Amino acid sequence: MTMQDARTREIGWHKSYLTDPTGSRPDLLVPVRQVHLTNGSDVTLYDTSGPYTDPSVRTDVRRGLAPVRDRWIAARGDTEEYPGRPVRPEDDGVKPSARHSGLRNLDAVFPGRPRLPRRGRSGEPVTQLRYARQGEITPEMAYVALREGVPAEVVREEIAAGRAVLPANVNHPEIEPMIIGKRFLVKVNANIGNSAVTSSIEEEVEKMTWATRWGADTVMDLSTGRNIHTTREWVLRNSPVPIGTVPLYQALEKVDGRAEELSWEVYKDTVIEQAEQGVDYMTVHAGVLLRYVPLTARRKTGIVSRGGSIMAAWCLAHHKENFLYENFEELCDILAAYDVTYSLGDGLRPGSIADANDEAQFAELRTLGELNTIAKRHQVQTMIEGPGHVPMHKIKENIDLQQEICEEAPFYTLGPLTTDIAPAYDHITSGIGAAMIAWWGTAMLCYVTPKEHLGLPDRDDVKTGVITYKIAAHAADLAKGHPGAQSWDDALSDARFEFRWEDQFNLALDPDTARAFHDETLPAEPAKTAHFCSMCGPKFCSMKISHDIRRDHAGDGITVDGGAVGAVAAGGSPDREATATDIAAGMAAKSKEFAAAGNRVYLPLAEPLAD
Amino acid sequence: MTMQDARTREIGWHKSYLTDPTGSRPDLLVPVRQVHLTNGSDVTLYDTSGPYTDPSVRTDVRRGLAPVRDRWIAARGDTEEYPGRPVRPEDDGVKPSARHSGLRNLDAVFPGRPRLPRRGRSGEPVTQLRYARQGEITPEMAYVALREGVPAEVVREEIAAGRAVLPANVNHPEIEPMIIGKRFLVKVNANIGNSAVTSSIEEEVEKMTWATRWGADTVMDLSTGRNIHTTREWVLRNSPVPIGTVPLYQALEKVDGRAEELSWEVYKDTVIEQAEQGVDYMTVHAGVLLRYVPLTARRKTGIVSRGGSIMAAWCLAHHKENFLYENFEELCDILAAYDVTYSLGDGLRPGSIADANDEAQFAELRTLGELNTIAKRHQVQTMIEGPGHVPMHKIKENIDLQQEICEEAPFYTLGPLTTDIAPAYDHITSGIGAAMIAWWGTAMLCYVTPKEHLGLPDRDDVKTGVITYKIAAHAADLAKGHPGAQSWDDALSDARFEFRWEDQFNLALDPDTARAFHDETLPAEPAKTAHFCSMCGPKFCSMKISHDIRRDHAGDGITVDGGAVGAVAAGGSPDREATATDIAAGMAAKSKEFAAAGNRVYLPLAEPLAD
Repeated sequence: MTMQDARTREIGWHKSYLTDPTGSRPDLLVPVRQVHLTNGSDVTLYDTSGPYTDPSVRTDVRRGLAPVRDRWIAARGDTEEYPGRPVRPEDDGVKPSARHSGLRNLDAVFPGRPRLPRRGRSGEPVTQLRYARQGEITPEMAYVALREGVPAEVVREEIAAGRAVLPANVNHPEIEPMIIGKRFLVKVNANIGNSAVTSSIEEEVEKMTWATRWGADTVMDLSTGRNIHTTREWVLRNSPVPIGTVPLYQALEKVDGRAEELSWEVYKDTVIEQAEQGVDYMTVHAGVLLRYVPLTARRKTGIVSRGGSIMAAWCLAHHKENFLYENFEELCDILAAYDVTYSLGDGLRPGSIADANDEAQFAELRTLGELNTIAKRHQVQTMIEGPGHVPMHKIKENIDLQQEICEEAPFYTLGPLTTDIAPAYDHITSGIGAAMIAWWGTAMLCYVTPKEHLGLPDRDDVKTGVITYKIAAHAADLAKGHPGAQSWDDALSDARFEFRWEDQFNLALDPDTARAFHDETLPAEPAKTAHFCSMCGPKFCSMKISHDIRRDHAGDGITVDGGAVGAVAAGGSPDREATATDIAAGMAAKSKEFAAAGNRVYLPLAEPLAD
Repeated sequence: MTMQDARTREIGWHKSYLTDPTGSRPDLLVPVRQVHLTNGSDVTLYDTSGPYTDPSVRTDVRRGLAPVRDRWIAARGDTEEYPGRPVRPEDDGVKPSARHSGLRNLDAVFPGRPRLPRRGRSGEPVTQLRYARQGEITPEMAYVALREGVPAEVVREEIAAGRAVLPANVNHPEIEPMIIGKRFLVKVNANIGNSAVTSSIEEEVEKMTWATRWGADTVMDLSTGRNIHTTREWVLRNSPVPIGTVPLYQALEKVDGRAEELSWEVYKDTVIEQAEQGVDYMTVHAGVLLRYVPLTARRKTGIVSRGGSIMAAWCLAHHKENFLYENFEELCDILAAYDVTYSLGDGLRPGSIADANDEAQFAELRTLGELNTIAKRHQVQTMIEGPGHVPMHKIKENIDLQQEICEEAPFYTLGPLTTDIAPAYDHITSGIGAAMIAWWGTAMLCYVTPKEHLGLPDRDDVKTGVITYKIAAHAADLAKGHPGAQSWDDALSDARFEFRWEDQFNLALDPDTARAFHDETLPAEPAKTAHFCSMCGPKFCSMKISHDIRRDHAGDGITVDGGAVGAVAAGGSPDREATATDIAAGMAAKSKEFAAAGNRVYLPLAEPLAD
């Protein structure tokens, strides 16, 4: 055993990389979490934590992550670097009139590697959708194929058909490519972002790395207030996962919070600003049409989407149609030039059980369907956002209708929350709905933290939200029969049944908490190899008893395959008694042996299990 | 305003009692939690917390609760008091040979009111099932009818048909009657109980009151180890909710943990002991048949039910049929004489995703169906226990099969857990499955705490488990369209939309945590009347904007009822453009007014909302 091995054995897992088995793409290094079990076998798990968990990589948040995709993007030859839009004080919410540094350059925004933004030559689409339609398997597609364990051609097909998106702005070369689509693993997004009331840049970068460490597949920076541009730059340069935003929030800051002063020009400027920084997907509330706003008038909770309410206010103030809807085709061309993916926002999603699946919600969904078609025509990758607050019996209608109206574009839902009565526990009210809607086809779940409706999530809330949603996503992967999903459960259950406590911890979604809970009541080190936990104690541990049964009756010759046993199990069969007698007779053959061995159903603690 | 009013207004809610509106049953006092809203209205919520939350009742755990049902039971005239089985040292796990106090009397076990046990005269059934079949509406039935808000005749019918149970041992007169059945509110059970490793009597009593305070409808005392009889006596005498047990655990203690030494005699003695104390329902693992045990041989996690593994070990050790199955009819007669309800245990439930819905599990379920029929013949109320670990797509089969095989007897499930990968979060993995299976017809959910698989739950874990399961139960009530369920959500959402923070807290399933989370980021008292929270801040609060829109456009004459708007919302209709124009015109009529008012989409914080 080398030193390296000793170290990794001790911590129970290490960061590893999958490589292309054909050897034709040596530049593909797909990160995985390699869990080393005490029985000598390994379990390979999907990993979103980025280079931060690789001890051989030196990371420095002031320098950012390595731009691993740079070569791939440059090699395509369809993009060009250009000076870019100048960064202005108001990008950070600083009034130009105030006494500030005035025009700032990128170096001041972020101390790392200086870079020029890149875009498609003369505005040409440089999207993964376009490549996929052209039959090209990009390095990004090959990467996600390895990551998901599917043929690259499946990845290309799903993207080409618009059933999946691979969010990867040409200005965010730091990401480890991932895919969002119903044929792939269900993904989880974590929202971070400061607000006018609280939080700092450092905190947001830390929340991003923290969220990805626990499994967030993408992160949305929903910052409002001050330092919005700089916060985003730091988040992007340090993020191994795609970053999403809602450009409307920053646009509103630029007009000092007055919705009626918003305009297509301010919005467009903001979109270009963010596209140049590298935002991978943007929520656009283009479906909140003027004529839908009155549909919310009798709702219990009106409009609960920030973006939706801002656009509704603008529409009413001007009595004009939503400028995002009116300028949607131009917006498509901008996004296509950077490969920014649309996340068509559901500005009229229900904010309470009472408002679920109402006219306003589904009217907007139909408009999102139209916009999806337009976006695809412009070769822009597109996903569709969904609710919200929906009781369980109304959830399926949401995904079924979305899939039908939006031609199977990936659905990206916020929960849904299945009841309104549990503020402080909305990660759970929504985790229930999230698992269900993901089972039925939602491709990505936007997490909800315990602080939903109450305040801004802190580090602990981010972790709780991510873990809850990883549970929902994985439960859905299992229910969908995703190939390979169950091997994780099987490995953990094997470890549990064999009392391999350390393996159980290392395979857990949250090893730290699982270990801590166990240690709380059985703190001594030997307890981690004990054949019971404090819940049942040694005498009542069913798995221990079950083990002993299996050991003591090995060789009975009784299998579950026998047709006779099958007939018995089916119950009510006429020959049941006879068959049962046969079996009892078969088992009786070993009974003296059992008694002779001292009827030892319970082993003394010190004695290791035979198997 | 009287002093009383002032006090209750201040705390936001008070304990109140529903009375029979017809006046014919003045002895019925059904507890409710009356929440007083700041807008002057009240919301009435189901309450399980017992007299502990009534400041006018003086409770003392050493004396126990008042025996409110005593008069009803005595009035029926079909029971008799008798000396009862003597309490023996071994009932508390004390070896008779050891130097201890020897034979103890009840006074030593519990210092409160001395009482003799009661049973049906000459072993006659004294069950709610029998009364219901005879067409009698007992005070207990009338009580739950008031509690559930349904006609008493519905309660009687459901019990008579075996679709519901009203667990109420004649020796547990302290309980506030409740009902378990799919036509009623979904119920939640909380498990407590010490183990050989940890915990004390005081802790268990406290866990019981704590669990019911947060909403547990029943509590199972799963104590093992020492003081099992005394712990149960204290729990029973202080419990306002039905108490369930697994008599097998105590029986095993009596034979010093040697499963092969268990016998029908020891078991029967234990059942009588517990029935005399007042246990309301008992888990009986009579379906673990000898011939089913080999069906578990190839499972990933064997047998994971404590009781199931003990009975399997006994069956194999003796190579005889399960003595609970063999003596089931006699057991029925014992239970019928005290009105102990059966909870037919699923000893072969799956303990991992891999083992879900397998032959062993469903073979046992079919036997539980046979036993259910026998129990009903003996007039014993019966519910059926269910799994366990089941992936989402296999959940529905469980409830559908159980309902079919067990003639719609109430299903009582442990979760199910929808994945194995999240030890320390199994309240969530199982809360997902619990909500779904309850929607589809499960009548009672057995909670799972964060400590599941890892250790014994403490006070905080009990609370987390109960709250999670109340969420699952209520989400199911909503999905089932239970009359009245949504009014709670509606009240909370109204409070949320109107920024009545205190009302939102008081209506929350966990007011303390909701308030604490809000205070964390906005601690000042005025923040509780603020029209935003720290999550979005004042400018981005969608509900605030939504409110302003509603206020500013009141009187626009635009309603959601108009056929024209309906047609627009439906989308794609040929006259859509024209209609939209009409609406825009209608809205434009108010546009100057809006501008004249200063385009005030955002109100200054100090300004109260108009409505």
